[in-house]
Amino acid sequence: MEIRKAVITAASQSQRTLPLQTLVDRDGKTKTALAIIVEEALDAGVEEVCIVVCPGDTANYRAAAGAHGRHIQFVEQATPLGYGHAVWCAREFTGQSPFLLLVGDHLYLSREAKGCAKQLVEVTAAETCAVSAVQATHESKLPYYGAVGGRLAGQQPGVYLVADVLEKPTPTVAEQKLIVPGLRAGHYLCFFGMHVLTPAVMATLGEDVVASDGKGRVQLSAALARLAQRERYLACELHGRRFDIGVKYGLLAAQLAFALNSPDRAEVLSGLVELLALDAK
Amino acid sequence: MEIRKAVITAASQSQRTLPLQTLVDRDGKTKTALAIIVEEALDAGVEEVCIVVCPGDTANYRAAAGAHGRHIQFVEQATPLGYGHAVWCAREFTGQSPFLLLVGDHLYLSREAKGCAKQLVEVTAAETCAVSAVQATHESKLPYYGAVGGRLAGQQPGVYLVADVLEKPTPTVAEQKLIVPGLRAGHYLCFFGMHVLTPAVMATLGEDVVASDGKGRVQLSAALARLAQRERYLACELHGRRFDIGVKYGLLAAQLAFALNSPDRAEVLSGLVELLALDAK
Repeated sequence: MEIRKAVITAASQSQRTLPLQTLVDRDGKTKTALAIIVEEALDAGVEEVCIVVCPGDTANYRAAAGAHGRHIQFVEQATPLGYGHAVWCAREFTGQSPFLLLVGDHLYLSREAKGCAKQLVEVTAAETCAVSAVQATHESKLPYYGAVGGRLAGQQPGVYLVADVLEKPTPTVAEQKLIVPGLRAGHYLCFFGMHVLTPAVMATLGEDVVASDGKGRVQLSAALARLAQRERYLACELHGRRFDIGVKYGLLAAQLAFALNSPDRAEVLSGLVELLALDAK
Repeated sequence: MEIRKAVITAASQSQRTLPLQTLVDRDGKTKTALAIIVEEALDAGVEEVCIVVCPGDTANYRAAAGAHGRHIQFVEQATPLGYGHAVWCAREFTGQSPFLLLVGDHLYLSREAKGCAKQLVEVTAAETCAVSAVQATHESKLPYYGAVGGRLAGQQPGVYLVADVLEKPTPTVAEQKLIVPGLRAGHYLCFFGMHVLTPAVMATLGEDVVASDGKGRVQLSAALARLAQRERYLACELHGRRFDIGVKYGLLAAQLAFALNSPDRAEVLSGLVELLALDAK
């Protein structure tokens, strides 16, 4: 399965300026968060990107995408009907192709030369089904994420066949439904904010959009839960870290991690020591 | 001299998104850089703020100012004719009043309970002349700043009568013209990015705008140099640090310094240690 298209959702009303934030990337260059996310996709082999934005944000986002603008289409989510609905807004762009799905408030730092999205896309190469990136996460963080239950899909470590998906489960429910053999006790496979989805997922989301009739929020996790009942759907662990830049000090954590993994590492470390010394006075 | 008005320049074409960047302020609240700068002015007693922006940026800046929007007027600098010209664009707003001048790419961390702008405004209370905030700066950094020469104005430490102003002088020129008795060897009084200016400064800038005839760039330093020849003009050192968020890792340095001086200090320090530990793996 070749992945040539990516969808980036950035239509949350409360987070519309996040992708416009500026950081120094791992290569030492100053970029917007949006440009860093788009590069994550392009480095994974993607050729066309669709960004789902709030009405009126297209011009700002186009400017923030900089030189990558020519790869990008914009779709506005006219009404805020949930994350699943935002993904579904890109259905004409994705058509009959599988696609990489990223979010506008997550940045990644890979532990290997390949980026996180490229690792995910490589796992999907031999598959014809949807694959979600997941991370073994302590149960104390379940309130923040969607989580999957299942078992190893085959011999390959870190690749799981998904049996169930729950959005922000309680620890009690997770213990009953999402135990994954082989994980450390009290840990669950939570979404990493990165998926490869298929036209079947768009169709499933479409059912939910019709069913909600513009009244409720359409969640991606609910559609993926139904998908897991109907067809093969995988989850895989990647070698990397995720930074949610929408939380307090999230930008700071991402910027520090990038800087310490950039050619500017020594300069940033000495700046840090200087700052701590000044601050101690 | 009471200061009720402030002008913030943010019309540099290359820095137009800087004031829109998001940071967690010293009070632990997430704000745009612009909101932090506006609060610096309001905390100093300012009641009305005029922001000079690039054409087309008013809507984004108004959104970034958030709840402070009602104190703010916007003026667009139609053509990029220099920093002095940008200040002059606010002449109808300032009228016959003295005003605080701030820049959209500098944030401040005071070493006392009073903010830096408030310290500056308090120095001007007994004066009827322009006063520029300055900082003793090593000669190696002269290429980045305007610098003043002069001598202590009276008994008050850190308040100087300005005799000359030069924009980005070489060390040789600075040594000939800007020596200030009492400063450490190799140090000069460089601008701190914050001034209280008078209608006389606007008039002086107006002369330069007419003389340049739309062809050259109008610099504030040149107007202040002429002002120093004509009338009393002071410089004063403040108790605080300046962060230029327009330089590489400038946002990172500002964010870290704010965080370490906020109620979140302990949390941020432990996050820092955790990040350094993860990064060392």
